[in-house]
This record gives sequence, structure tokens and C-alpha cells, in this order.
Amino acid sequence: MQKFMIIGERIHCISPVIRKALEERDPEPILKRAKEQIAAGAAYLDVNIGPAEKDGEEIMQWVVQLIQSECDNIPLALDTANKKAIEAGIKVYNRSKGKPIINSADAGDRIDNINLAAANDAMCIALCAKEGIPRDNDERMMYCQQMLERAMEAGMDPEDLLFDPLFLVIKGMQEKQVEVLEAIKMMSEMGLKTTGGLSNVSNGAPKHLRPVLDAYTLAMAMMCGLTSAIANPCDPKLQEAVKTCDIILGNTLYADSYLEL
Amino acid sequence: MQKFMIIGERIHCISPVIRKALEERDPEPILKRAKEQIAAGAAYLDVNIGPAEKDGEEIMQWVVQLIQSECDNIPLALDTANKKAIEAGIKVYNRSKGKPIINSADAGDRIDNINLAAANDAMCIALCAKEGIPRDNDERMMYCQQMLERAMEAGMDPEDLLFDPLFLVIKGMQEKQVEVLEAIKMMSEMGLKTTGGLSNVSNGAPKHLRPVLDAYTLAMAMMCGLTSAIANPCDPKLQEAVKTCDIILGNTLYADSYLEL
Repeated sequence: MQKFMIIGERIHCISPVIRKALEERDPEPILKRAKEQIAAGAAYLDVNIGPAEKDGEEIMQWVVQLIQSECDNIPLALDTANKKAIEAGIKVYNRSKGKPIINSADAGDRIDNINLAAANDAMCIALCAKEGIPRDNDERMMYCQQMLERAMEAGMDPEDLLFDPLFLVIKGMQEKQVEVLEAIKMMSEMGLKTTGGLSNVSNGAPKHLRPVLDAYTLAMAMMCGLTSAIANPCDPKLQEAVKTCDIILGNTLYADSYLEL
Repeated sequence: MQKFMIIGERIHCISPVIRKALEERDPEPILKRAKEQIAAGAAYLDVNIGPAEKDGEEIMQWVVQLIQSECDNIPLALDTANKKAIEAGIKVYNRSKGKPIINSADAGDRIDNINLAAANDAMCIALCAKEGIPRDNDERMMYCQQMLERAMEAGMDPEDLLFDPLFLVIKGMQEKQVEVLEAIKMMSEMGLKTTGGLSNVSNGAPKHLRPVLDAYTLAMAMMCGLTSAIANPCDPKLQEAVKTCDIILGNTLYADSYLEL
């Protein structure tokens, strides 16, 4: 069994600090968050530069080279709607610690990103959605199938796809949570790898509840077979959940000190 | 969907305070633990008087009447190897808030306790074991079937059985955890109710880790369909797990204050 994989979410242009650093090509704030996440156990770092319509290629190349050169070639998920920026990022990407992940394809306008991944021997997050939130698991699984077929036609190893069932906010869509967990179970039973933006779950909930909702959702999703999540590895509650569930599932060996390892 | 049910475990003769109180018929220590557990949300209280070979009937009647008369007829699980003591307890038991639970039958020498439950319109915890720990889930499910058949032959409603897959200690039997969780899933898929002595999981682990191991095991077990547990409701971590997983599963409605409710 493999250890659960955290894709660190904290280098994201939605953060004013990161947006400014990307605009001004200021290494420090970006490297600080990169190093914190790596120290906390992130296996991959997501790098979200936003739509990046202007200068996207240059920004992505700068940030990929910056992080990898300073952080022992940590593998990255390249996260932008700008396809050319992704291609540019892959050109300078160092694969010694793992393939780049393209974040993300979907079953609609962005399905071409699967072909982009195939053409560049990259991994790809495959969002099981087309327009908005899938109505039910029939729709979710149809999108999953469509993207799986597209990938296989393009010669991609299904292992290189991370299917994202789209975690939904509990406050407002409480009745849909079990469905998302069941989708993860179905995908896992098909032998597929899965991921998701975990913090969606607790959006809008009081600040002290967010880590709690995220942690137990993660535990239940890991029971359903979830293999990775895009999340904040610096959240101690999330670490507690991941490490303990990895122990229960036998993904890591028990030691009395396992929480500190 | 029904809320997860905690059967409070803290009135147990293994505790020196409780053993002394039972021997001396001293109400205070017993009522204190009863009230604490009820305040913390226990739906049932387990009352373990030990083997109670001497005076078992008298002790059980005394403690059942004591707790129920002082605690608004809280329903109880009568926990002893002394069958006559269980029968005596049921005689004085007040059913207004719920049937008594017999703790426990197994697929071996104690299978008769299922008939005792049937004859007394009681519920029964059905331990999926015969001699020692079942080797695998084939054995576990065979015992489950044997006890289910025995109950149905005796005219019992399967809803009155709580199947216990036997939670195993992580430190020492780590590789068996997933099996126990899978057994819960199989029993749930058969439509059966399940329970278990949760704190077995963390036996022998450092004190600070025990609530963590218990809480995430519970979350994963609830994802598999576990409907109740014999546990310490006064453990805040356990409460956090139960309440949050009940929210995720849609067993209770989300409110920003759900952890305080």
C-alpha cells in the first residue's frame, strides 16, 4: 500500500502575498511557503498562477525553476487555465523526483489537457465535471469514463490520472457529501487514483470548525480509497488525520512516535 | 438516517472505584459516572459487574434500579458472564426509554444469550467470535451468520442484534485493522446493526495517542456503516469524531454550533 499523498495548496495566486510575489518576481514569499509545506510532508506542491493571460509562460517558467532549484526538485502541479503557460512550465521542469501534474482537465472545455499530459508524459488531475457541479454520481462517473477513455486513446497510463470527484461544501450541500464519498469508492474499486480540493468541504464554516470538518472528511474519504488530496499540509489536524489513517490502513508501519515522523 | 449511538463504557468493575462501589452498594461513584456519560451524550450505559458469581443477581438488580431511578430511566446494557444476574436485572429494568441490551452473546459457549434476549424481548450484542480472535473475515462472517440464524429461529427481530466484529489492537495487530473495517462494511451491507469496544484499538499505545487512534478508527468505521460503539462519551476527541461524521453522513443536520449541541 502507498502512503497518502498531500499536494500542498498554499502557493496560490488567490493569496495577496503570493499574487504580489508572482507579479514582482519576488522569490522570498514563494520559497517560504514552499519550504514550509515540504517540511510538513507535502509530496507535491501545487503552483496556481491564476488565469495568467499576460506573461503566463514567463511567470510559470520563473516559478517552476525557482521552486525546484531551491527545493531539491520537489515535484509540482502546474495549475492555470493558460495552456501555453503549462507547456512552458513543463519545458523547464525537472523530473528527477516525479512527473509534473497538470491541474486540471475536465470533461468539458478542458478535456484537451489530457492530451497535453499524454503528449508531455505528465500526470493530470481529471475533474469529474463539465459545466458546474455534477447532478449525481451517474453524471460524475460518466465524466470519469469519458476522461479515462480519452487518456487511454492518447496512450496514457491510467496511473497518471488523478480523478477528482469535486468535494462539495457541507454548509449548503450537506446532503451531497455521501455521494462524493461513494464516487471515490467507485473510482477506487475501478483501480483509479483519486484526489480533490479538500478545503471546499468546510467553505463558509466557522474558522475553528474548518480543520475538523476537513480532517474527518479526509478520514472517511481515505476509507473509500482516496489516494491524494490538494490540501494544506501545515494544518496539524490534517496531518493527524492523514498519518493516523495511513496507520489504520496499513500504509505506514505503526510506531509510538508515528505522529512526529 | 439515525444518529450514531454511544454506549457509555465507564461503569465497569475493572475500575477500582466502581468495583468498590458495587461491593459496598455505594450509589455516589456509580451515579456520578452515569450522569457524566449521559451529559456527554451517551444513548445507553453499559453496566459491567464482572463475573459476579456471588451476589450477582442482587448486585445487578441494585445497580439497574439505582441508575434508572436517578437518571430518568436511561437504557442500559447488562454486562456480565452471570446469566442469572442478567435475568434478574431485566426483571427490574424499566423499558420506557429503550429495551435492555444483553452484553454479550458469541458464537461459542455464550450463544444461548441470544435465546435469553429473545425470551425477554431484549437486544443483544453478538460478538463475532468463538474461541479467541477470528482468523479472518470468512470466520467472522460465519459466526455472524450462525448468530443471526439462531436469533431468527428464536423469533428475534434482527434489528435487536448489534454485531460486534471485535476491534483489534493496532499496536501488534496493525495488519488486521482493514479486515475489521471490511467486516463492518459487509455486515452493514446485509442491513445489520453493528457495535464494538472501540478502545481496544488503542490498547498499549501512549496515552496521548489513544484518543487519536480511537477517533479516526471510529470515523473510518462509521464510513463502513458502524451504527454504535461501546466507548467513553466523555472523551472530547471521540465526541468530535462522532458529531462530525454524523454531519458528513447526513445523520444530523449541519449547524455552525454542531460541536456544542
